[in-house]
Amino acid sequence: MMNSLATALSDFFFEYETPRQVLVRNKHIGVVCRLVQLAVLGYIVGWVFLYEKGYQSTGSAVSSVLTKMKGVGFTRVNGTERVWDVADYVFPEQGDSSFVIMTNYIMTEGQRQGTCPEVRPHFDWQMTGKCVNETGTCEVFAWCPIEHDREIPNPPLLMSSENYTLFIKNSITFPQFQVFRSNLVEGIDNKYLKSCIYNEEKDRYCPIFRLGDIVKLANFEFSAIAREGGTIGIIISWECNLDLPIKYCRPEYQFHGLYRSVEEEESAKASVGYNFRYAKYYMEGGVEKRTLIKVFGIRLDITVRGEARKFDIIPTLTAIGSGVGIFGVATVVCDLVLLHVLPKKNLYKNMKFKYTVSQEEVSCFPESVTILNLQPSLRGMSSG
Amino acid sequence: MMNSLATALSDFFFEYETPRQVLVRNKHIGVVCRLVQLAVLGYIVGWVFLYEKGYQSTGSAVSSVLTKMKGVGFTRVNGTERVWDVADYVFPEQGDSSFVIMTNYIMTEGQRQGTCPEVRPHFDWQMTGKCVNETGTCEVFAWCPIEHDREIPNPPLLMSSENYTLFIKNSITFPQFQVFRSNLVEGIDNKYLKSCIYNEEKDRYCPIFRLGDIVKLANFEFSAIAREGGTIGIIISWECNLDLPIKYCRPEYQFHGLYRSVEEEESAKASVGYNFRYAKYYMEGGVEKRTLIKVFGIRLDITVRGEARKFDIIPTLTAIGSGVGIFGVATVVCDLVLLHVLPKKNLYKNMKFKYTVSQEEVSCFPESVTILNLQPSLRGMSSG
Amino acid sequence: MMNSLATALSDFFFEYETPRQVLVRNKHIGVVCRLVQLAVLGYIVGWVFLYEKGYQSTGSAVSSVLTKMKGVGFTRVNGTERVWDVADYVFPEQGDSSFVIMTNYIMTEGQRQGTCPEVRPHFDWQMTGKCVNETGTCEVFAWCPIEHDREIPNPPLLMSSENYTLFIKNSITFPQFQVFRSNLVEGIDNKYLKSCIYNEEKDRYCPIFRLGDIVKLANFEFSAIAREGGTIGIIISWECNLDLPIKYCRPEYQFHGLYRSVEEEESAKASVGYNFRYAKYYMEGGVEKRTLIKVFGIRLDITVRGEARKFDIIPTLTAIGSGVGIFGVATVVCDLVLLHVLPKKNLYKNMKFKYTVSQEEVSCFPESVTILNLQPSLRGMSSG
Repeated sequence: MMNSLATALSDFFFEYETPRQVLVRNKHIGVVCRLVQLAVLGYIVGWVFLYEKGYQSTGSAVSSVLTKMKGVGFTRVNGTERVWDVADYVFPEQGDSSFVIMTNYIMTEGQRQGTCPEVRPHFDWQMTGKCVNETGTCEVFAWCPIEHDREIPNPPLLMSSENYTLFIKNSITFPQFQVFRSNLVEGIDNKYLKSCIYNEEKDRYCPIFRLGDIVKLANFEFSAIAREGGTIGIIISWECNLDLPIKYCRPEYQFHGLYRSVEEEESAKASVGYNFRYAKYYMEGGVEKRTLIKVFGIRLDITVRGEARKFDIIPTLTAIGSGVGIFGVATVVCDLVLLHVLPKKNLYKNMKFKYTVSQEEVSCFPESVTILNLQPSLRGMSSG
Repeated sequence: MMNSLATALSDFFFEYETPRQVLVRNKHIGVVCRLVQLAVLGYIVGWVFLYEKGYQSTGSAVSSVLTKMKGVGFTRVNGTERVWDVADYVFPEQGDSSFVIMTNYIMTEGQRQGTCPEVRPHFDWQMTGKCVNETGTCEVFAWCPIEHDREIPNPPLLMSSENYTLFIKNSITFPQFQVFRSNLVEGIDNKYLKSCIYNEEKDRYCPIFRLGDIVKLANFEFSAIAREGGTIGIIISWECNLDLPIKYCRPEYQFHGLYRSVEEEESAKASVGYNFRYAKYYMEGGVEKRTLIKVFGIRLDITVRGEARKFDIIPTLTAIGSGVGIFGVATVVCDLVLLHVLPKKNLYKNMKFKYTVSQEEVSCFPESVTILNLQPSLRGMSSG
Repeated sequence: MMNSLATALSDFFFEYETPRQVLVRNKHIGVVCRLVQLAVLGYIVGWVFLYEKGYQSTGSAVSSVLTKMKGVGFTRVNGTERVWDVADYVFPEQGDSSFVIMTNYIMTEGQRQGTCPEVRPHFDWQMTGKCVNETGTCEVFAWCPIEHDREIPNPPLLMSSENYTLFIKNSITFPQFQVFRSNLVEGIDNKYLKSCIYNEEKDRYCPIFRLGDIVKLANFEFSAIAREGGTIGIIISWECNLDLPIKYCRPEYQFHGLYRSVEEEESAKASVGYNFRYAKYYMEGGVEKRTLIKVFGIRLDITVRGEARKFDIIPTLTAIGSGVGIFGVATVVCDLVLLHVLPKKNLYKNMKFKYTVSQEEVSCFPESVTILNLQPSLRGMSSG
């Protein structure tokens, strides 16, 4: 028993089997099949390997974004001048990746809880029951006086916001590859940061953006978006080939308007319109009051998209293995042509296949009886 | 040299090799193997290709979410009436994808820095050292008076919040496929938006949601979550087959309660309880004071999950190639049956394999001489 | 016609073809090829299957994070004492996944819109035109008095923030596998939560973190980051093998400083420095005033990374199929050695290949002539 196992093992290790093949000497099929095989090989090597970098594994990123606005705005409404600094016009103030820059506003000062006639009929405040017949509106219990927001100031009150600057700090980690990068890439030092402004051609890696430039790059007209507000997406796109030196792993900034309506989709223009209400509360004479501000502004949504690629043995071997499989498909196609299309198909069939007798027939003769073909000219086609 | 290379090349191009095969005429093995092969083929075509859409490549999405609440709340506490509008009850106010709607609160008015007795022993304020023996509490330096938050108002003060509505604007981009979509899909125009309310069956694409409906769809009871607060996740799920017309790329809204405790996991019920403290500061008589509000509310976390699929030649060929590989496995299995299980296995073995003489023997004769080996001992290596 | 189709079908189903092979009895090639094949098999089974878990499909997560800070700070500036509670020092207040804990500040009280001399020349406020020659600065229209932010308080005013605690609630869903988990894993009950503090070794699943520990784990010195501010990323990493019981699906907390500058990247030290300006508005004597606070603080960015893996038939079969392909590559390599390197290569070539006559030669004899096996009954098993 042990002996036969040892024999089987030694047989297994000292033998090697390789498929027997017919070598068809036919120019037509030869050229066609070789070309098909070369095409498959070209596809695997050229496309899957080189173009699509199938030898690399892919890893996604974990990222963090900090923002800082700079600039001062100035308004003059009904003769009253006012300056607006960052603490006044950025919401929220702590430098998030998604924030709003106020560019226009409707301010309702001195609101307090009480009763007053509503501005439009059927507004959703609490009704008191009293109705003022002349205007067709009713008295409501609300923050009074009620906001008049029918007319949006035009031109926008804070047109100077066009010159505000935005500083983006973005840090990205590819945990799978243990790679850490910041958007302050090589060559960006404090001196450069003090003077640079992002420019698609000249200063592609400067992380300081003029608000007017962002709006233009997102295909908006500044006066329109400043008046009614709007949403702009900034995508920081990292596509890093980590087989190259790390300094080539650099961000690309993309800007596009969000919230296109379906009708506008063909024209690829995003619609304007973004606002929210914000209240500053205070006490005056023991009564709680508030200043309600309807803020129209530019909302910036900063998204980071990171993908790193690096050589990895597993996708490489998977690509090779699956390529060999496709190679097999090419062979099957050639065989079909060989056995069913070519004029000498029967000859090839006979050479390719050896038939066992069907079960019904007696097959007492061992196969090796069939030989005895001694003619030398036929040796090539001999029993081998 | 050049000549021989040319010959090798022309040989290579004008020849085609195809494996020689034994065609076994055996009903049992035939049926079994064909069925195995058909099953493999069925799996590849039916499952990998048609069901799992293995011929498509997948791309993830970049998205942006804007929200806008509507509705007015009304409270009457100790005879004092108060209305609450969006600027009062939404935190933060600027329409983020994650925000809180206040549904209940404990308000501590007129707090100022000073000393007062703590409410509970061992609270973490700064101790002054003086202790009030009757109550067992000590004097602390804190914002005084100290908040009493043992009892949460019941019923919740802002039960009317059930009728607030939430408008979600979601815009999504599949950068890999250059596709841009908004949740205002085809058929949603301004007229429809003015009147529609999301309904799982009838209005699946209406982006306006009643807060009470959201709570119900997340399996919460409104009065419970309104009283103690809670967290609800809204997933906007885009699964787009871009081989179909773009209008079928539409969002699906899913609602579920977050922060289930481990014990509750079996019952699939999320736990209620969400609050935070918020202060409104003001000056009164030159002294800084604040109104501290412990806010209980419904926190909505909106997440967008997007996956687009489109025909791509690479996954198609990878699936085919790897399918051919699995086909090969089926063949190996059939061969094992053929050579080791069937009664006539030795016959098949002889037909399938041709043996070279082992190294020990002299093998000066070209192969076709090896025939005529009628000696039974050599039959294993016979011409077959 | 129908008849011949039926014959073809029955032929197809009752036949099975298997490649004919040469079994080479050569110790060298045998051992080499078997070892190559075993290596490939070992790679597929050991690496792709067991180590990389190629039999599993991967799903990403949808997650939600809630945070809650605890602790009271205490400052004494110019003899004035002040306490700071959560509502005072956390921005934003509602417990987001990204927030700032104030650790130092420059407060400018009583600012009002007006004119005053600028602090530094060329500041970006609105100039009035009047310049004060002695100081070299000009008068500006701004929020006056202007903030003096040259000197950052040292030591930081809120050093006590080191003892604040952070409670993280994280809930994660793997939609593909219908799995829901919370970071309050098995064994974490209310009693444990009341007393535990996260510790890398002893309390790895306690979701309550001391701010000082977080700073230390991110390789910062507390006094430095508290003085100038800084950004720390907390990654909650879920790597779940869903083939194991669900209780092994547990989070891992990782801490690292963000925004390293390029020069510092080698030293793996993140740079300190994070601040923003924040204003509290109030009315005093009918005039709007504000308290401007330049906040230096620790910004925590909590990111959730989730990946679940579970057995799936498709990646399993894809891995097998592609493994068979790689097996084929091994065979090709062995064949090259066999046919071009070994001394008896011609013998093996003759055994492996059967040549058809080249096209130039007359091949009028059908192949089956080569036999001379005139017994009709045996033709099926003929020399082919």
